[in-house]
Amino acid sequence: MGTILLRNATILSMDSERRVFENGDVLVRDDRIAAVGAVDPAEADQADEVVDLTGRMVLPGLVNTHVHTSQQLERGLADDVDLLTWLHDRTWPFESALTEEDQYLSTLACGCELIRSGVTTFAEAGGQHMDATGRAVENLGLRARLCISSMDCGEGLPEGWVRPIQEVLAEQKGLYDRWHGKAGGRIGVWFGLRTIFNCSDELIVATKDMADTLQTGVHMHVAEIQEEVRFARQTRGASTVEHLGALGALGPNLLAVHHVWLTAKEVDLLALHDVKTSHNAAAAMRYLGFAPVPEMLRKGVAVSIGTDGAPSNNHMDMMSEMYLVSLIHKGRHLDPCAVTADKVLEMATVMGARCMLMDDSIGSLSEGMKADLMVVNPRDFGSLPVHDPVSALVGAMYSANVESSMCDGRWLMRDRKVLTVDMEGLLDEIQSRADAVRRRAGIELPPRFPVVRVR
Amino acid sequence: MGTILLRNATILSMDSERRVFENGDVLVRDDRIAAVGAVDPAEADQADEVVDLTGRMVLPGLVNTHVHTSQQLERGLADDVDLLTWLHDRTWPFESALTEEDQYLSTLACGCELIRSGVTTFAEAGGQHMDATGRAVENLGLRARLCISSMDCGEGLPEGWVRPIQEVLAEQKGLYDRWHGKAGGRIGVWFGLRTIFNCSDELIVATKDMADTLQTGVHMHVAEIQEEVRFARQTRGASTVEHLGALGALGPNLLAVHHVWLTAKEVDLLALHDVKTSHNAAAAMRYLGFAPVPEMLRKGVAVSIGTDGAPSNNHMDMMSEMYLVSLIHKGRHLDPCAVTADKVLEMATVMGARCMLMDDSIGSLSEGMKADLMVVNPRDFGSLPVHDPVSALVGAMYSANVESSMCDGRWLMRDRKVLTVDMEGLLDEIQSRADAVRRRAGIELPPRFPVVRVR
Repeated sequence: MGTILLRNATILSMDSERRVFENGDVLVRDDRIAAVGAVDPAEADQADEVVDLTGRMVLPGLVNTHVHTSQQLERGLADDVDLLTWLHDRTWPFESALTEEDQYLSTLACGCELIRSGVTTFAEAGGQHMDATGRAVENLGLRARLCISSMDCGEGLPEGWVRPIQEVLAEQKGLYDRWHGKAGGRIGVWFGLRTIFNCSDELIVATKDMADTLQTGVHMHVAEIQEEVRFARQTRGASTVEHLGALGALGPNLLAVHHVWLTAKEVDLLALHDVKTSHNAAAAMRYLGFAPVPEMLRKGVAVSIGTDGAPSNNHMDMMSEMYLVSLIHKGRHLDPCAVTADKVLEMATVMGARCMLMDDSIGSLSEGMKADLMVVNPRDFGSLPVHDPVSALVGAMYSANVESSMCDGRWLMRDRKVLTVDMEGLLDEIQSRADAVRRRAGIELPPRFPVVRVR
Repeated sequence: MGTILLRNATILSMDSERRVFENGDVLVRDDRIAAVGAVDPAEADQADEVVDLTGRMVLPGLVNTHVHTSQQLERGLADDVDLLTWLHDRTWPFESALTEEDQYLSTLACGCELIRSGVTTFAEAGGQHMDATGRAVENLGLRARLCISSMDCGEGLPEGWVRPIQEVLAEQKGLYDRWHGKAGGRIGVWFGLRTIFNCSDELIVATKDMADTLQTGVHMHVAEIQEEVRFARQTRGASTVEHLGALGALGPNLLAVHHVWLTAKEVDLLALHDVKTSHNAAAAMRYLGFAPVPEMLRKGVAVSIGTDGAPSNNHMDMMSEMYLVSLIHKGRHLDPCAVTADKVLEMATVMGARCMLMDDSIGSLSEGMKADLMVVNPRDFGSLPVHDPVSALVGAMYSANVESSMCDGRWLMRDRKVLTVDMEGLLDEIQSRADAVRRRAGIELPPRFPVVRVR
């Protein structure tokens, strides 16, 4: 793949010292970073490609730790409704109606939105037709951890979603065998546990054991809604995290997502067991409530950021999500210093990598790390002036400022053009395919305003 | 100016029936809308310009009811600090250091950001060098209500900001005489009252009287911070809105901004006196707390949306602000139906116009209204699919989706290019001028991360 030299940028390395290099360079050799900051002139001279990035910032590609690729075509189909309507009448029917090819397109569309917001790595939250997702991720050039949501109990779910435990485990293992380590290691497989509502203790324990044996992770929605606390106490005698602790299921390879309704004791348990977490600010604000992120950070819990799925947000956009994370905790705590911009940027990069068990290879820019990075251009009326690059990135910039990105040493996007897919062809297809799925699912939205068809 | 025909769009008219025209047209004649929906073919044939908008939406230009144009160059200079630092060490020194020409550039830069987020009308919150702002607004082609913040008492403010009441009133009247009704009526002048901390009762009453006499509005920060409630009770014996009521200063031409710390009685008073309000969601989340917007809407208070100034947000972007407004009240009330997307869109258009006392001429698209409108293109990975145009606009779109806009029948932007300024020249100047103001103000930011200068 050769060498690429990125020149004259402000580099937010997010390395262990969090160094910011002004007017610095990054040398990429094949899939790895060969140098950051000052590059040996002899090496620089031999670069196959030299890109002048004057006025730009370079930073690690963003890590989105909770993405429902199966919900991308459902965007805007479940706004302003209660959670039961959201689940039973919109999201579950919609996801159930997806074909394998719908899911392939859904992942491509989602992937393009992620790439255009600077994401180079994401964690699938547990969707449909994961082989199609694997194919799409392979083609998109992203780094991802795939996942199926396991469910072996619970009511009201679409036919076939709840299955016997052995079937569920075998399906997960099959996905693992087919995809783990594929695409040059860009694709891995984690095991999914939907929620405490839908997973027996036996399934939880078996899933965690399988993940430990295969040295991979477990992705689970935890303490998501207030009702979950009541349900867990009633059926298990303890709230979710406490119960997971009693089962021995807490550990460094568990990614607990949402974590809105935690007790102080549960925050301590997460820290004690080095459980990883994913804060989804928009979804929290839309349905769930606030997550105790400042408290978790104070206790040393590893907190990353996820966008959740399109109908929960509706932005599958880590730049937008960083802005939200920087705001909402200040308002809740009446503390303008709660969750500062530098902390938010850490959550979206190094902590994201840590929460996906990949901080030895991604999430920061230093010699030997994978070449996963983004180029940001602040030259726009919405971003200038830049008095502080970190403030600007988190508080003032948009996905539209993300000019280019690279994963595994390969350009995914240059000048806003995603290079790994046929963007226009894909944009042409999204609406018609989404409409077809909606019709098959039998979902009709009540119009908000009276519609007059002129012709 | 001739006639312009916009064809084949989804038109969100926001008229009294809130009609949505599918595949509809808008005919603009000079500065007014001549027809919406179906246009008489004979009239259509005679249009000077025909624009095909297949796949686009057309809606009223957005109304931003609280904008500090004097703070545009301060963006990102006061993040993650307490309110006293924000005021005393950053914002006040910065604003005081602005020259007349800085303010002209500041307003141009702010105006471009507003235009690129679909804004056609804004209310100045009360800034420096308002004659420069007037010149800039005249050139930008926006509609605006200028305003100086009056202060005749209070401590800790920069030299010259607090002055004797007669001087303050004369300054306001002077601005009114020079600018009210100028630029073909696009520019008007309101009177400003900074806060209850900085305005004597005599000033409040005299300002309201002058506004009533001249049939214009009063723009005031009200119930902004928790401390204000204590201060008002201590010095006036009642909280701000109650005290304004006792002074006879509540009325339909008062725009109360922020309104975070209202009692239930104060919400009732606002409704009773038809006081207009401006909800600034990002500023609220960053510093102030939540505003009781769902409660205010239930009581029939006229609530509009403002972005506040750049260092309070940092997005001077009504598309971003609509998204925030749609989210944060849901999270606070754990009610996913709190402040629905259609309500948010009303707040940003018709209610914005009403709060600026202009709903007889802007804020909706129907025959005879001023031709202030925006064209939105959803064709992007962050917005498609569109299952519901209102959900998509509020929940999924960005300023980057705003393709074109028109104010007073004149194109301000086409295909993202602002036509009324030299965009590139202005972008070249923002950073250097902002740096110069910052240096004159003596503001040095502590670096968040260690900086290494490579060359």
